[in-house]
Amino acid sequence: MTQIYDTILITGAAGRLGSELRLGLAPLARKLRLADMAPIQNLQAHEEAVTFDLGDEAAVMAAVEGVDVIVHFGGAPLERPWDEILNANIRGSYHIYEAARKHGVKRVVYASSVHAIGYHRLEDHIDTNAPHRPDSLYGLSKCFVEDLGRLYWDKFGIESVALRIFSSFPEPADRRMLWSWLSFDDCVRLVTAALSAPMVGFSLSFGMSDNKVKPVDNGLAGHLGYYPQDTTEPFRAGVEGKTPALDPKAPAVQHLGGWFVDLGHPDDEAK
Amino acid sequence: MTQIYDTILITGAAGRLGSELRLGLAPLARKLRLADMAPIQNLQAHEEAVTFDLGDEAAVMAAVEGVDVIVHFGGAPLERPWDEILNANIRGSYHIYEAARKHGVKRVVYASSVHAIGYHRLEDHIDTNAPHRPDSLYGLSKCFVEDLGRLYWDKFGIESVALRIFSSFPEPADRRMLWSWLSFDDCVRLVTAALSAPMVGFSLSFGMSDNKVKPVDNGLAGHLGYYPQDTTEPFRAGVEGKTPALDPKAPAVQHLGGWFVDLGHPDDEAK
Amino acid sequence: MTQIYDTILITGAAGRLGSELRLGLAPLARKLRLADMAPIQNLQAHEEAVTFDLGDEAAVMAAVEGVDVIVHFGGAPLERPWDEILNANIRGSYHIYEAARKHGVKRVVYASSVHAIGYHRLEDHIDTNAPHRPDSLYGLSKCFVEDLGRLYWDKFGIESVALRIFSSFPEPADRRMLWSWLSFDDCVRLVTAALSAPMVGFSLSFGMSDNKVKPVDNGLAGHLGYYPQDTTEPFRAGVEGKTPALDPKAPAVQHLGGWFVDLGHPDDEAK
Amino acid sequence: MTQIYDTILITGAAGRLGSELRLGLAPLARKLRLADMAPIQNLQAHEEAVTFDLGDEAAVMAAVEGVDVIVHFGGAPLERPWDEILNANIRGSYHIYEAARKHGVKRVVYASSVHAIGYHRLEDHIDTNAPHRPDSLYGLSKCFVEDLGRLYWDKFGIESVALRIFSSFPEPADRRMLWSWLSFDDCVRLVTAALSAPMVGFSLSFGMSDNKVKPVDNGLAGHLGYYPQDTTEPFRAGVEGKTPALDPKAPAVQHLGGWFVDLGHPDDEAK
Amino acid sequence: MTQIYDTILITGAAGRLGSELRLGLAPLARKLRLADMAPIQNLQAHEEAVTFDLGDEAAVMAAVEGVDVIVHFGGAPLERPWDEILNANIRGSYHIYEAARKHGVKRVVYASSVHAIGYHRLEDHIDTNAPHRPDSLYGLSKCFVEDLGRLYWDKFGIESVALRIFSSFPEPADRRMLWSWLSFDDCVRLVTAALSAPMVGFSLSFGMSDNKVKPVDNGLAGHLGYYPQDTTEPFRAGVEGKTPALDPKAPAVQHLGGWFVDLGHPDDEAK
Amino acid sequence: MTQIYDTILITGAAGRLGSELRLGLAPLARKLRLADMAPIQNLQAHEEAVTFDLGDEAAVMAAVEGVDVIVHFGGAPLERPWDEILNANIRGSYHIYEAARKHGVKRVVYASSVHAIGYHRLEDHIDTNAPHRPDSLYGLSKCFVEDLGRLYWDKFGIESVALRIFSSFPEPADRRMLWSWLSFDDCVRLVTAALSAPMVGFSLSFGMSDNKVKPVDNGLAGHLGYYPQDTTEPFRAGVEGKTPALDPKAPAVQHLGGWFVDLGHPDDEAK
Repeated sequence: MTQIYDTILITGAAGRLGSELRLGLAPLARKLRLADMAPIQNLQAHEEAVTFDLGDEAAVMAAVEGVDVIVHFGGAPLERPWDEILNANIRGSYHIYEAARKHGVKRVVYASSVHAIGYHRLEDHIDTNAPHRPDSLYGLSKCFVEDLGRLYWDKFGIESVALRIFSSFPEPADRRMLWSWLSFDDCVRLVTAALSAPMVGFSLSFGMSDNKVKPVDNGLAGHLGYYPQDTTEPFRAGVEGKTPALDPKAPAVQHLGGWFVDLGHPDDEAK
Repeated sequence: MTQIYDTILITGAAGRLGSELRLGLAPLARKLRLADMAPIQNLQAHEEAVTFDLGDEAAVMAAVEGVDVIVHFGGAPLERPWDEILNANIRGSYHIYEAARKHGVKRVVYASSVHAIGYHRLEDHIDTNAPHRPDSLYGLSKCFVEDLGRLYWDKFGIESVALRIFSSFPEPADRRMLWSWLSFDDCVRLVTAALSAPMVGFSLSFGMSDNKVKPVDNGLAGHLGYYPQDTTEPFRAGVEGKTPALDPKAPAVQHLGGWFVDLGHPDDEAK
Repeated sequence: MTQIYDTILITGAAGRLGSELRLGLAPLARKLRLADMAPIQNLQAHEEAVTFDLGDEAAVMAAVEGVDVIVHFGGAPLERPWDEILNANIRGSYHIYEAARKHGVKRVVYASSVHAIGYHRLEDHIDTNAPHRPDSLYGLSKCFVEDLGRLYWDKFGIESVALRIFSSFPEPADRRMLWSWLSFDDCVRLVTAALSAPMVGFSLSFGMSDNKVKPVDNGLAGHLGYYPQDTTEPFRAGVEGKTPALDPKAPAVQHLGGWFVDLGHPDDEAK
Repeated sequence: MTQIYDTILITGAAGRLGSELRLGLAPLARKLRLADMAPIQNLQAHEEAVTFDLGDEAAVMAAVEGVDVIVHFGGAPLERPWDEILNANIRGSYHIYEAARKHGVKRVVYASSVHAIGYHRLEDHIDTNAPHRPDSLYGLSKCFVEDLGRLYWDKFGIESVALRIFSSFPEPADRRMLWSWLSFDDCVRLVTAALSAPMVGFSLSFGMSDNKVKPVDNGLAGHLGYYPQDTTEPFRAGVEGKTPALDPKAPAVQHLGGWFVDLGHPDDEAK
Repeated sequence: MTQIYDTILITGAAGRLGSELRLGLAPLARKLRLADMAPIQNLQAHEEAVTFDLGDEAAVMAAVEGVDVIVHFGGAPLERPWDEILNANIRGSYHIYEAARKHGVKRVVYASSVHAIGYHRLEDHIDTNAPHRPDSLYGLSKCFVEDLGRLYWDKFGIESVALRIFSSFPEPADRRMLWSWLSFDDCVRLVTAALSAPMVGFSLSFGMSDNKVKPVDNGLAGHLGYYPQDTTEPFRAGVEGKTPALDPKAPAVQHLGGWFVDLGHPDDEAK
Repeated sequence: MTQIYDTILITGAAGRLGSELRLGLAPLARKLRLADMAPIQNLQAHEEAVTFDLGDEAAVMAAVEGVDVIVHFGGAPLERPWDEILNANIRGSYHIYEAARKHGVKRVVYASSVHAIGYHRLEDHIDTNAPHRPDSLYGLSKCFVEDLGRLYWDKFGIESVALRIFSSFPEPADRRMLWSWLSFDDCVRLVTAALSAPMVGFSLSFGMSDNKVKPVDNGLAGHLGYYPQDTTEPFRAGVEGKTPALDPKAPAVQHLGGWFVDLGHPDDEAK
């Protein structure tokens, strides 16, 4: 892969996926600007770091200056109380898009999530045109940012790819991840495709590795050119050996969102 | 129409449509609770008034207590700066749904808008399953509340109908409204249908009168039983006489959202 | 309506709907042959009667001789033990189609049922292409006969219209029937359309009156020319006055099949 | 209807439908320019006549000068030898569109035909998005002009409505016309709608009266605002009395194109 | 593959495919219970045999006791007279599902067939949602059992996968099988996927090897995780060398069901 | 590949793709008849040459005599003035199909083009059922011949495959071709598949190599058995090194037709 950008801003760069992208996207740009609330460790020569809360509009605005493209993986990475979702994911992402607009950024690649569509069922085999069906406040915020990206393309001409990441961890940790897992290497491949595709407008893509069980159809993302190369098959025996069989009647098994559909409201003390 | 509820809460009850609903929905309940930021005038015996800002969570919570169903027409009714949209439409609607959940409200009827789908084109003849395509921050907030309603049905069992109202004014005021107009009486019919349909889960309906030009397909809302009875034909000669012909190549003519697609960002000083 | 056939065979002619068809279809033929297990009362000059069990293949064969078209409304009209469904509805209908094939009958109009698709949901607003989703052994037998009709058209060139009748009673008896009711007059109109349409091949049509709530889409049956003229609105106040409000979370309210989805297996003693 | 154009050019103005349009469209413009190969009779004050062959490019170019909109009903009106179809329908329509482009005409309303889709089946209940399926060289030329109109909208911004007229005659003349008939008054309504709709881009509409049997779905043309007001029911008894019943297995009965599907090649001497 | 069940019942275990499954499924369970009308040969330590006619309800009930999952491949494997289809395929399969219900069996994997959809055309490239279109009484019985499985999932919570097997033989025997063949190894892979997928509800899958010509789309079965590994290409030259070219106008070539569409009624003496 | 035809006629045989087909198709027939306006060089023993203009009906008729199948790649291969498109592509292809009809040719494989659908957008990810949307007179002529092939199948039983070739050149020459390229070898594979598929009726297939970015869905052509084996990845670095990045807002980047959408009318002197 050759350099296709001068400067890429990665938000959430100290996080689990952000750390992988920091390594994986290095060949694509002269400079990576790494943003997070937490300090960035071990800064390299081609990297620069900025530390701020996404809810701080001025800080976001400053961090985006001089950037060609934004890989927006920051914000709360799972279900959290409303105030936190509102601040980090809704207000924070709005700040990112506003900064992109004001600084002429060309494209935003966003870490959306399966939880934007978590109440769809495996057997419905949906594609990326299926309506939003969030399974949590977290998923609701992902829906919001997808719509935000759509608006900024239609009205302001800023391209976006929203990646609905399923389960990106070092290894598949349970039986659901045998189909939902996205390996770190495939995650880098997916972001790379979203950054290098010739024309994206506003596009959606599911984010999974090439696992055997495929309950969704990513065909509408063919213009991105994402080809996963990993699969959970090497992990199957291990996972099946240490975890019990699933109950096919359990909502967490029937729906794409998994155990998120069993969550109550995050603001309730006793759920 | 017979009484089907004990108490209906109407938000935005002092507004243009709220005032119509206050009259039109009276037969459906023993008591109407009328909410707005502005004071409610001329309170009747079957009415009670509450005054608060939707951004005030505690006030919303109090206003919802003892209510069977909410007709949520409050919030900013057109494009406004982000902070206002965020407070009134996003935070405010979240407060409404949370209060509904905590107080066991059965159903919410929400005033969504054509601006949630404003970047679709007339000639595409979309139905209510078409993806969100907001044309403004206002429209973006409408998308958010639709997804919120979907979540609260899927997870908490609260029914919702989101009504995508096109142009509800006393009379069609321009040539676009010759197809997009929703008469006040039809608006009451639409909300009445949404309140009385036997089963709605989370449902969407377009809101227009029975105008001659029909650029969208509301067939998926057949389970609501909404039948508009007004039409813009009596106003056609008048409107065409006092307004110039449209330019079919203008974005505001090609897209459902009309002149909203021409709006810049509301936070820009010079647009 | 003018005579379009010489002889029409009506099965189930002593039943609730059969009795209505006996009157309503009289103008369409010179002769009506009325079949039932029970004796036919008050035979008229243009009528002839045959009495037999649909499970009796030879009797069916004899009854079909000399017939132009069959209106097949016989068989068990609701959930029954398997042996009865098997004999009357599955074997019986097979005998009808075999007799039609052997005697050169041109068209069969069949009383299928909502219960062939009873597990679809109101809010899905299905059309007649939706897959079978029976809610009972009765519904399963209706699916079988629809497929049988399809086979006899594709292979043997016998036309069929399968009418998925929802609730055909003198009056709507409960709140579900406010949307599902088919008046007797509309039932006659529907069968008349199915008998007189120029080209049907194998066609499906839903059977409901022009009720306000329309949870299914019958557009694919436009080539039949069925126009219901009755509606449940005159009965609404009465029904709503004497029956309790529905629980939108009840499966019998959410699904097209109504209380059939709550039925257990008919062969179980204690359900 | 008020005047919405200064000058309308009607081609084929001496023909069966052209003569009707000449009367029916008069209120829409200050001036009608009437074109045909045959001389125009009884010219009125608000009319002017031009006589030419559509294959004559220069004559077409001259006839279009100063025109706001073209109602293109000229050309061979049924199956003809290839050379005639090529000259009048293919070359002739190309000349019309080229003249529209060069003279800045805003919109073209074109008399396409059911024969562009004649090999689709009644029971498939197609909409206007179904692929071309011509049943004759005549139908093939209609497909060509539809694609031509699409190109001139996409590339040159000239709006078009292609009207797929089924059977437009004074009265329904046979049993097929009981569903396919377009009354002359409804034809005028349809062209009027196509001329006055606010935004058409490139649009397709079927052209039939409000007949009882409706084997196609015109819902995608809702943005045109065409409402037929005639029906064949008053003619049914007469037609059925003097014509034999149809054979449902005959290709001419099963397909939309009727007896055109039985035609051989027009250039064959013995067919 | 690891053991995922204690006891699997295989019906039709003495048949062509049953014999393959007996070998191929052995790793998935501690015990295979092998059922057939014919005696089972060479019983192994991990196997047990039961012999009965599927029409014998009591025998089926006994055979299912203590079973976790049923692989139902028994019944008439091709077109047969009605009485035999009725007894073995319709009544027999009903007995299997009833026994599953009474004994708490979790999942049924059923050998459905291409002949449930045999009248669809190759060029239509259907997916598993296409309506039933049986080509024989045999295919009709397959449709029935698919609907039966759907009912038992919706009402009783028993999962099913219906496998529409195309042509499963040792080698492709004719030119049609060059696209329709399912190798024995792929058949075992398909059943294994259906047995081990995490969530199936009621699912359909086509059953073909990875042949070059693919006239159907199995994408909706992606949640099963079936990956064929065989192909007919090694057999192509041989088959094409010894069989004549196909006539593309022959119904048996145009339709998925092949020569089954040419069959008459099995009860006719001279067909 | 074995011989499956006696004589194949290849039109445009002296052209870029024709020359490749001349080599690649040789194994499929005893004799190749090579047609072009230009003389054929280096005729081989299994070849025969005919030289004529496609507009010359008698010459085409003579050239088709004795032929089993036609691979029609002749005509203007890119945008040209109307008279040339009309003569070579419209009249010329009509002559080919008429000759096929008169001489009993079984199948025509036609070089259609992406330019028949060039105004569709990459992000819409269309399949072959999407409506025609030509981007040029050239593309318009391709639409015409597709419809012609459809007519000759429906009416005269001559099979056709229209191959919508994207960019077939020795190497991808620009960034658009990184997704649109069809290698010469894959072009031969595609034509071979179209010639050898068992049943094609009238079929459409996109023609691209197995490139990483796939903006269209060729799934409906699965019955042809085309499997590209080349990809542009080896050329990526070279192409990206010597050509500038694309502007995602440029129409030529957003639409399938590429720079054809920027072309004006070929008959204009100054465009």
